[in-house]
Amino acid sequence: VRPRFYLPNLDREAARGRLDEHEARHLSRVLRLGPGADIEVLDGVGGLFHARVTTVWRDGVDVALIAPVTPAAEPRVQVGLVMSVLKGDSMDAVVRDAAMMGVATVQPVISARSETTIAALQRGHRARRWSRVAVSSVKQCGRATVPRIFPPVTLEAWLGSRATARRLALVEPSSARGHSFSAIDRSPVVDLLVGPEGGWTPAELARLDRADVPLVTLGPRTLRAEAAPTIALAALFEAWNAW
Amino acid sequence: VRPRFYLPNLDREAARGRLDEHEARHLSRVLRLGPGADIEVLDGVGGLFHARVTTVWRDGVDVALIAPVTPAAEPRVQVGLVMSVLKGDSMDAVVRDAAMMGVATVQPVISARSETTIAALQRGHRARRWSRVAVSSVKQCGRATVPRIFPPVTLEAWLGSRATARRLALVEPSSARGHSFSAIDRSPVVDLLVGPEGGWTPAELARLDRADVPLVTLGPRTLRAEAAPTIALAALFEAWNAW
Repeated sequence: VRPRFYLPNLDREAARGRLDEHEARHLSRVLRLGPGADIEVLDGVGGLFHARVTTVWRDGVDVALIAPVTPAAEPRVQVGLVMSVLKGDSMDAVVRDAAMMGVATVQPVISARSETTIAALQRGHRARRWSRVAVSSVKQCGRATVPRIFPPVTLEAWLGSRATARRLALVEPSSARGHSFSAIDRSPVVDLLVGPEGGWTPAELARLDRADVPLVTLGPRTLRAEAAPTIALAALFEAWNAW
Repeated sequence: VRPRFYLPNLDREAARGRLDEHEARHLSRVLRLGPGADIEVLDGVGGLFHARVTTVWRDGVDVALIAPVTPAAEPRVQVGLVMSVLKGDSMDAVVRDAAMMGVATVQPVISARSETTIAALQRGHRARRWSRVAVSSVKQCGRATVPRIFPPVTLEAWLGSRATARRLALVEPSSARGHSFSAIDRSPVVDLLVGPEGGWTPAELARLDRADVPLVTLGPRTLRAEAAPTIALAALFEAWNAW
């Protein structure tokens, strides 16, 4: 298996590109590769290539593309994960596995029980961190598409924005008003909203109702907040034959 | 929410029981509860009760049952997870989430790419640890049934034993010979075999073939070994309407 690197600025015409400092450091310092090394590069928008290292600079690595490689196919439904921000590393794990499952975008939202604020996320440069996590996961799962991570917004702002996809919201088993994914018509583009640890407040559930967002459930057992989005994506892909 | 404790030796007739030392310590030392405290106890075989602490002893806690509580329902298909042992904490995470998803049993198996041996697992008292992890997960997800953790066996020994359930094996996307769960008839009792990091060897795939174990896949992207069983259980429950 050739090691993979993220090269968003690759020049397909000239069949070459330069890895940024972060990727270059991984190549030369961690993997100790140099000129002549066989690698793979992905452009994040569907392109994956066999490539060769030509020059190692102090702050970048030049590579020459050799031939296109077929990446793992994208899901047949374009899914945006709209995720209530979880505390600490839990959100990293959510982004990692959502990228592995094949989501197109991740929209972090702040809901009543999110134990953080937009300001705190910005101060912690969390969006940049989540993008790195997504890139790393994409390399490992074989995709060549890196999901876009949107800047965090409040749940209210997200619900108030114009919908560009079919919206669905996962609810706790105790809500008892949810449908199974199989009972919902397949949409080609869907935004799946998943709640925080402790779930939605009654006011949020009422708000989802007013916004006509259909509720979905995944059986009667309470799922860990960190695992819920992955489990929901698996159920959605299976129900809609969209893997 | 009342804190939950595991009480496998509860006496339904006498409506009482004694928590073991481990559970008692959690009650009195960690949660700092004492006589009169309202708790819930689960017997691990489907019974969940509202209970009250009567006496705190040095090495146990006596409780009196007050009334039965309805636990989260079990899945409509009885699933045994037959899992190639993953290294370190990864296997703990697998057991935790399998218990949360609702499996009936966990059978750890040693396959070619498992980086451990049965002797090492026994020396490390891993089965006892996994049982604790399963109990803890069951408490949190609302089940009253604790999945039984079988002693580890080799893959060959498992395949050679008499099947007590429909057997299915999850395979890597690269195998390209797998079916989706939806394409497989629902069975009331199923053993789902999941491979280690790196997947099955060609010899193991040939062995599964000779044993007539149908292969299932979950789309074209490579899943983390630790996440694969949870994702497979979600797909199975959704495909078979078995949540």
